[in-house]
Formats: sequence, structure tokens, C-alpha cells
Amino acid sequence: MTYRAPVRDLAFTLEAVAGLDQVAATGAFPDYDADLMRAVLDAAGQVSEEVLAPLNRIGDQQGATYANGAVTAAPGFADAYRQFAAGGWLGLAAPTHAGGQGLPKALELAAYETVHAANMAFGLCPMLSLAAIEALEAHGTEHQKTMYLPRMVSGEWTGAMCLTEPQAGSDLGALTSTAVPNGDGTYSLTGQKIYITWGDHDATDNIVHLVLARLPDAPAGPKGISLFLANKYLVKPDGSLGDRNGFRPVGIEHKLGIHASPTCVMAYEGAIAELVGRPNEGLSHMFTMMNAARVGVGMEGVGIAERAYQHALAYAADRRQGRSVWTGEASAPILDHPDVRRTLAVMKARIAAGRALCLSTGVAADLARHAATEDERQFWKGREDLLTPIAKAWSTDMGVEVASQGVQIHGGMGFVEETGAAQHYRDARIAPIYEGTNGIQAMDLVGRKLGQDGGASAKAVIGEMKATLAELARLYDGKPVERFATAIGAVEDATLWILDRKAAADGAADVLAAAAPYLTLMGDVIGGWMLAKGALTAKARLDAGDTDVEWLGGRITLYEVYAANVLGHASSRLAAIGQGGALLARMTPSVLAG
Amino acid sequence: MTYRAPVRDLAFTLEAVAGLDQVAATGAFPDYDADLMRAVLDAAGQVSEEVLAPLNRIGDQQGATYANGAVTAAPGFADAYRQFAAGGWLGLAAPTHAGGQGLPKALELAAYETVHAANMAFGLCPMLSLAAIEALEAHGTEHQKTMYLPRMVSGEWTGAMCLTEPQAGSDLGALTSTAVPNGDGTYSLTGQKIYITWGDHDATDNIVHLVLARLPDAPAGPKGISLFLANKYLVKPDGSLGDRNGFRPVGIEHKLGIHASPTCVMAYEGAIAELVGRPNEGLSHMFTMMNAARVGVGMEGVGIAERAYQHALAYAADRRQGRSVWTGEASAPILDHPDVRRTLAVMKARIAAGRALCLSTGVAADLARHAATEDERQFWKGREDLLTPIAKAWSTDMGVEVASQGVQIHGGMGFVEETGAAQHYRDARIAPIYEGTNGIQAMDLVGRKLGQDGGASAKAVIGEMKATLAELARLYDGKPVERFATAIGAVEDATLWILDRKAAADGAADVLAAAAPYLTLMGDVIGGWMLAKGALTAKARLDAGDTDVEWLGGRITLYEVYAANVLGHASSRLAAIGQGGALLARMTPSVLAG
Repeated sequence: MTYRAPVRDLAFTLEAVAGLDQVAATGAFPDYDADLMRAVLDAAGQVSEEVLAPLNRIGDQQGATYANGAVTAAPGFADAYRQFAAGGWLGLAAPTHAGGQGLPKALELAAYETVHAANMAFGLCPMLSLAAIEALEAHGTEHQKTMYLPRMVSGEWTGAMCLTEPQAGSDLGALTSTAVPNGDGTYSLTGQKIYITWGDHDATDNIVHLVLARLPDAPAGPKGISLFLANKYLVKPDGSLGDRNGFRPVGIEHKLGIHASPTCVMAYEGAIAELVGRPNEGLSHMFTMMNAARVGVGMEGVGIAERAYQHALAYAADRRQGRSVWTGEASAPILDHPDVRRTLAVMKARIAAGRALCLSTGVAADLARHAATEDERQFWKGREDLLTPIAKAWSTDMGVEVASQGVQIHGGMGFVEETGAAQHYRDARIAPIYEGTNGIQAMDLVGRKLGQDGGASAKAVIGEMKATLAELARLYDGKPVERFATAIGAVEDATLWILDRKAAADGAADVLAAAAPYLTLMGDVIGGWMLAKGALTAKARLDAGDTDVEWLGGRITLYEVYAANVLGHASSRLAAIGQGGALLARMTPSVLAG
Repeated sequence: MTYRAPVRDLAFTLEAVAGLDQVAATGAFPDYDADLMRAVLDAAGQVSEEVLAPLNRIGDQQGATYANGAVTAAPGFADAYRQFAAGGWLGLAAPTHAGGQGLPKALELAAYETVHAANMAFGLCPMLSLAAIEALEAHGTEHQKTMYLPRMVSGEWTGAMCLTEPQAGSDLGALTSTAVPNGDGTYSLTGQKIYITWGDHDATDNIVHLVLARLPDAPAGPKGISLFLANKYLVKPDGSLGDRNGFRPVGIEHKLGIHASPTCVMAYEGAIAELVGRPNEGLSHMFTMMNAARVGVGMEGVGIAERAYQHALAYAADRRQGRSVWTGEASAPILDHPDVRRTLAVMKARIAAGRALCLSTGVAADLARHAATEDERQFWKGREDLLTPIAKAWSTDMGVEVASQGVQIHGGMGFVEETGAAQHYRDARIAPIYEGTNGIQAMDLVGRKLGQDGGASAKAVIGEMKATLAELARLYDGKPVERFATAIGAVEDATLWILDRKAAADGAADVLAAAAPYLTLMGDVIGGWMLAKGALTAKARLDAGDTDVEWLGGRITLYEVYAANVLGHASSRLAAIGQGGALLARMTPSVLAG
């Protein structure tokens, strides 16, 4: 099974749905134009198809290995990484002063969909470096930026993010690693971290660890955590590498999937470290880059879903069983059976919605930095903040479900590992968990994002959806329009209900009980909105004489499929959203165990 | 993680929801009473908890192995099988003339939930024997019944069902294995079969293969298939074993899950075989036992979901992160966070619904055989036929989703194989595929079952649901009642729409496009009906002074949870049901690939 990067769809989504032209119009990206975008996506697609995808199976089968305090990347992965880095893929959206190309984040996100789809375990290595680059860019000293950024942007060194401890996962405030000043401006870092993705490997000489730990005089809880940088090898003033630093992996996890991504347990034993940013503000420093990392994981969900979809589609076109009700063929491809066709069509529609959600979040992030006025930047920051947990959670839940449907379409062959469909099902399962579980995303959405501006960002989205609805009547009759109208109404009702319960003294449990179904509703409907925008653009292009009739017509049909199969559910989610915390409180631990 | 058999819930569901008392009232089971039922479930729970559950991990890790034309069961499995057989568990519902206990099938089904939950890979071995016993009981000659049934009921020999060939899966009419008469009443069987569960192993001396093949003069297609019996070792007239027969496994599949269940590729090379039943009627002979096998697989879905649920609940009670909005505790069990509580409550409610669906199907099967009058038997046969595809598909889809939620509740630990949650996620994935994919179940529901009596069986269910609805107002106010009313209305609308489209000359694609969402709707609502019946019984028992207040109260809350989280979706499924085949036809292969 080969992977084909969906370049046309990525470009269409960036242009016609996510609004990358608005980013270009800010003037912050003088080198950018639509041709460059296509060239970047083509090139990303090529490296993903030709270099990364062929390693996906061996990475799963042989995985990264650990022995004697060191991790060895899966066969071929270290070479592939060096080829990938040499292609400039770590620097696409990095600042030009550090050797990057300074292109929009949204374009980087689109390029990385193909990386994750081709080889999700591989993609985590550059993804973590990008997060570390972003943290240093935002909070590092000039010296740190000069020393580290160029080497990380070139890919000469990778980055690792070291947050979780056994007792401190979703609740990072409980972490206990310590950093004691050495008196020379450096710190001595001690503690154990778990789930450190690509925390050790043999693809580069040095690995830059960004580590959360406590200063000796730090307050307890989340406000006593600082951010530190520790290199695998001590870095000399000229940037050359010296002795091994005092940390090492003590093991890697035996996981359900992404076997080629080493998930390390790291022990820091007096490792020499530098402070990054301000003391005791490590958590908030991390949060400044959390949005980017989270939408990146959302894109993983889209990528693995796309891969599983392509795999299933190829099988369904090839496998023949039974007579088709459409063609009358006696031994028809199973694709010609309505239930298989429906499954594939809904998979494709949900993938397109997730892609648009994530790329729109990326565009909002670019505009939050580069829009012309402070008001606009605030508006887009609000949009980015609102969409980020939805993009992360909705897309990764979708990734698991689509990968599961991909197995199903293969029938018995899907359960046989050699087919490869099962790997996607296993790999996809991590994305709803890491970078903040999807439950945490939902709490973030209703707890922080919805309230931070009195619901203004959500209301702005609702207003824009209504504007699209008004246009939609030009394109469809009847149900495809009614379903969107009903769905917008459900979002409006749910949003007002949650804002109301947030304002009530006794509303906290109600809001938290509603969080996950509300996030799903938002993703379903905002995703539908984006497909509707895509359909409108497709119609406009057709009206303007675009000759790509079949593909553009497909975008119009895709919205209808989504409307019937996904938007149709929107209003019914109100039941779960409004169930209330009191009902759940009655499901006591002993009732649950009974 | 230990497994605890949900004996109280199984007994309650059999008595209060599925109506096992009606089976007892037929007089066909003179030895049966409620005390015996409890004793059987307790004993099944004990063997599942103490013998089978402890082997689940090693079975996953080491699996069954193949070498030199023979399969060796996973460590401990052969001994466990012999212990299980000695306990009489193959004979619970088998005829007494063959050494069975002649108890209701529904009780056997309930007992086997615990077997599948404890060790799904193990459970397949007796499950396939039960299917073979049923086929021989229905279609075997007297000699075959005398020779084989006692040895299979005692567990001395196991059975295997050999249907699928590489080109003939969902479409068995395409199979090409042949059976040539030898002139002495036996046949010479040649061909290759795949996906033969427990087709070879070392737990018993002989294995009785029931094999579909074609006679030399057979018509092409499904009406030219006959059923044959071939023993691993030739059986002498006195029942002792002679030479090895001419078939052997040529390999086992490397699978996503159920590693301890050997999935064999079998080669028959002139194997000596006997005809079972009538020539060219093999497929219909197989179909007479298909209902039982399918509801058995549904029960696997329930079992694996229950196991995953218990696993997640134990973790959620133990793992502490963050402050509870309910208790105010600073480092609270994650069970005290509303989103985790909601997830677990919905898991429990859906499992209870699946259990009730499957056991009600089992009761219908018992009544279809043993009810007093022909009219009653026909009624119950219609009920069994209608519920079977729903019980199979809905419960196994639920099994996958609940196992996935079980992983999610574990957070990062869920993705680490040592935790065990991932095994459930992998194991669960096969159940929607085998014994007829869930897509095939949906086609069976709308194509065969709904039409065979002009929709009478579906309409009878709708009528009974309305009767329960009328009672429900005594127990709940407002939404829990309204949601059931709306849901019944959706079932009614959908059923009439499908019957209408079935009657239309151009309706076939519409009906098939609707099949899977219709099945889900039926499962959602019938499952809710069953929880409502359970809640009403719980209320009646409480009113009668039953002191089990917390547990019975929990049944009342459970329906409310289900109503908000599952029944609330029912009416929205009409959008997907009514989408029509024409919309899907517009999603052409090239649009899907574009």
C-alpha cells in the first residue's frame, strides 16, 4: 500500500476554506505566494511518499530499541531524519534569522499532515523539535536563541519536551523534579520524567531537552514550576559538543502503536541545565506553545485518518464480493455496495472537515501574530484559542474512528497485521491521549476558552456560520440547508446554556459534564461550516469556468454527505450536553462498580 | 487487573428484562429454576475468574504457535480447556441424550459472557464447538449424532467451522472446494479454507471439521454448496481414533488481537469426509445455526466491553489527578471528575443495553423452539430473527467503542501494553468482522429480516415499546420519558420508510444505504427499551420492600444516563437513514479517490 499526499485537497483547504490569503495579505510573508504554497506541498508530499511512507511498516515491526542506556532508532529512521532535515523541513515556518524560511505556520501544518500520514512515529521527532523551537523563540535569552535555534532549525540537533512524571500527568502541578542553582548561572537538575517522545535516539549528536522542574524556594503547585534546558552533550561556547550530561534514558515503553517513536523514561541525575524564561513561570511558558503543539496533534489525527482511508479505498476498489445493486455486476468491487460506499464517503467527509478545522486554526494562529491591528490580532487570538482544543480533540477522535472503519472495510484481512490496516488503528489511538487528553481539551474549551472573552469568540463563529448559511441556499435546496440551520441553532443553544451555567454558583459540575459532548458538537458543526465554505468556493469556481468539474463537483457532494451523516446529529447532542452533573453524581462509585 | 463476573447483573437481566421466566414456563426445562440459574452463573463466573482470566495476558503475549503442520495452543490453554470441558461447560444447553444438561440457550449465553470477558481468545474454542454441535443436532444422521455429539458435548473432541476461502468471504457462493464421492458413502474433500478458528490445536485428540464444499455435479453459486464433516483423525466404528486424515493447517495468521485463538489456513487434500444433511443445501443448513453463532459473537462484544469497563473503572478509582468539583479533594481519583464519570456511566449503560439485547435474543431463540403453540413459536422465531443481526452488530460495535474509551480513561498508561487496556482494544476489533461483518448484518436486517413478515416482527417490538413507554411515566418525569417517546417515533418512521422503499421498484440502493444507520438506531432504542424495563422492575422490587436499595436505584439512574446520552441521538439518525442511494452514487470512485 502506497501513500499519496492529498496535495490538491490541502491547497484547496488552505485557500478556499482556511483563508490563507488573509495571512498573505498581512504582508508579513513577502516571499509567500500561491505558487510557492503548491511547490512546498508538492515537495512535502514527495518526501512523505518516497522517504517516510516506505519506512512505516518496518518501523512498526522492529521499532526503536533500548539497550545499555541508549536508544537506537528503528532501521532507516536515522538516515531518513537526516534527509528530512537536509530538505529544510524543520525550518519551514521558523524565523529567517535562525535559518528558517519564515513561511506561515498554517502551511507548515499542511505539509506536516503528509509527514504524519506517511509515518506517524517518524513525524513526532520533528514535531517535538518544532515545539522546542517555538518555546525558545518565545522565552529564550538572546544567547539561547543564537546558540540553539539555528542548530535546531537546521535539524542538526533535535528537541524534546519533558513534562510528565509518574504522579503528574494531566495535573502538572504535582511534579517534583528539582533544579538547584550551581552558583555559576547553571542549575543541577534531578528527577524522573516519563513519556518523553524521542527523548533519546541516534539520529543526531545532541538532543535539547526542555524540562519542567522546581527551584528550591519555589511555591508548591503549578505556580512553582520553571522551565529548564539541558543538552544531552554539554555545549561549549563555540557550539561544539563536550562531555555527556547527567541524564539518560532508563527504558522505553512497549506500546500499542507508534513503535518507531521511542517513548523514554528519562532520569536526570544532577544534569547541568539553563533556566529558560522567568523563574516559576515554566507552566505558562509552556502554555504559550501549547496551542501549536495541540493543533499539530490534531493534524496527526487527520493524517492517520487519511492514510487509513486511502488504504481502505484501495482495498474496496480491488476486493470483489457479491452483486452490485448499482451496476448489476455479479462479482463487484465492494466499493459498489452502498454500505461500503457510505462508509468511505463519510470517512472522506470527516477527514476533510478535520483538515479544514486544523488548517483554519493554523491560519488563526498566523493572523494572531501578524494581522495589521491589535484588535484584529486579539480577534484571531481568540479564534485560535477557541479552535485549538476542538481541532485537537475532534480530529484525533475522528482519527481513531476512521482507522477503525478502515479495518472494518478490509473484513478479515483488516485483522491480519500484514495488511497494514491494523497498524493505523493501533497508531491512531495515542493522539486522543497525549498533548492533553481529549477530556482535558474539552475542559479547556468550556473552562478557559469559552469564558475568557465572555463567549465573544464563540459568538463570532456563530455569526459567521449564519452568514455562510445565508449563502448556502444558493447552492442547495431543502435538507442540506435545513440541517446546517438546525446545527447552528444547536451550537447557539448549547453555548448560551454553558455560559449560563458557568455564571451560576452551582454550575461547575454541569459545565464539566457537558464539556466533551459540547466539544464534539462544536467540531461537528464548525467542520460542516468549513465543508459548506468549500462547496461554495467550488461552485464559484465552476461558475467562473473552472474545468476541474468532477473534483469541484465532489466538494459539493461531500458537504451533502456530511450534512446527512454528521450535521444531522448536531441537535441531538443537546441531550447529552444538558444532562447535568447531578445525574452523574448519582452514578456513584458503588453504583458504577455494582 | 482481575475480572469479576457480573453475576448479579446477568441474573437480573435474564429475569427482569429478557424474560427467562417465560422460557421456564414452557415446561421444556423441568430441571430449571431461578436457584439453578444463579448456581450456574456463579459457577461460570468462578471458572472464568479463576481459570480463564489469569491466562488472558500470557495468551496475548505468547499466543498460539504453528510449526511443521501443527498448532500448539498458548501456554496453559490446553489444560484450561480440559478443566473447562470437565466442568460440563460444553453441555449446558446441549440435549440430555447427548450428555448435556438441556438448559435454556439464554442461560448458556449468559454464562459465556463471562468466558468471553475473561479470555476472548479461549472462549472461541468452545463457541465454535457449540456451533458445530448445533449443526449436527439439526442436520446430522442418527449415526452422526450418536457418534459425534456425546464426544463434542463432553468436550473430548472440539468442532471447527470451515466456510471462508480467499475469494469467498461475505459471498460464500463463490467457494470452490470440492467433495468427490468415493463410492463407499464417503467423500474425498479438496480445497483451501482460511480464517478457521481453532482449526488445529493440541488441546484435544480429535477435531471435527464441518466444511462447505461442492459436489461434482453441483450447480454454480450458493445453491451448489453442501456441508461435510471431516475428522482430524479417522474415527473407527467404535469411536476410537485411527489414522490422520488428509488435511492439515498450513499456517496461522499474525493478528491484531486474540493471539491465543489460532486462526488457521487449512489445506484439505483428499480428506475423507461425510455428508451432513442434504446435498446442495449446505448453505441453508449453516444458516439454521447462524443465529446462535451470531448472538454468541454479540455476547463477545458485551464481554470484552465489560472487561474493558472494569479495567478502566479500577484505574479511575485509583489514579489521582487534580481537584474534584464534587468533593473538593485536591488530589482526587479521576473518577471524581465529571467527564470521566460520564464516560464510565455511559460505558456501563451501553454494556447493560447490549447484554439485554443479546440475552433477549437468546430467550426468543428458546421460545422459538419451545413455546406452547405454533403461533407463539412463529412469533418468537420472528423476534429472534429480527434481533439477531442487531444483537451481533450493535453489541460488537459497542465493544470496540467501549474498549477504546477504556484505553482513553487510562491516559498514557492505556497506550502502554503492560497495562492490559490495549489488549481489549485489539481483541475487541475482530467481533464486528467475523460471523458476518456488521455491514452484512445490516443488510440481513433490512433485506431479509424486516421483509420476511411484512415488518410484523418490527411492528410488534414497536408496540411493546409503546406499552413500556406508557408505564415509564410512573417512574420518571419529563425528559427520560420524552426521549423514549421520540426514539420510538424515530424507529417507527424509519421502519415505515424502509418498508416503503423496499416495496418500490427503484428502492434497493436506498434501503442498502440506510441499512447500517437503521441497525444502529434499532439497537440504540431497543437497548433503551430494555434498560427501561429493568428500571421498572427495579422500582417494583423497591416498592415491594427489596432492601438492595443502592443497586436497584442504580438501575433506575442507568436508564436516565442512557436516555440522555444514547436515546437522545435516536431521532437524528433519520437523516443518515434517509440519505438515499442516489447521493452515494454521486460519490463515485474517482470522487472518492480525488
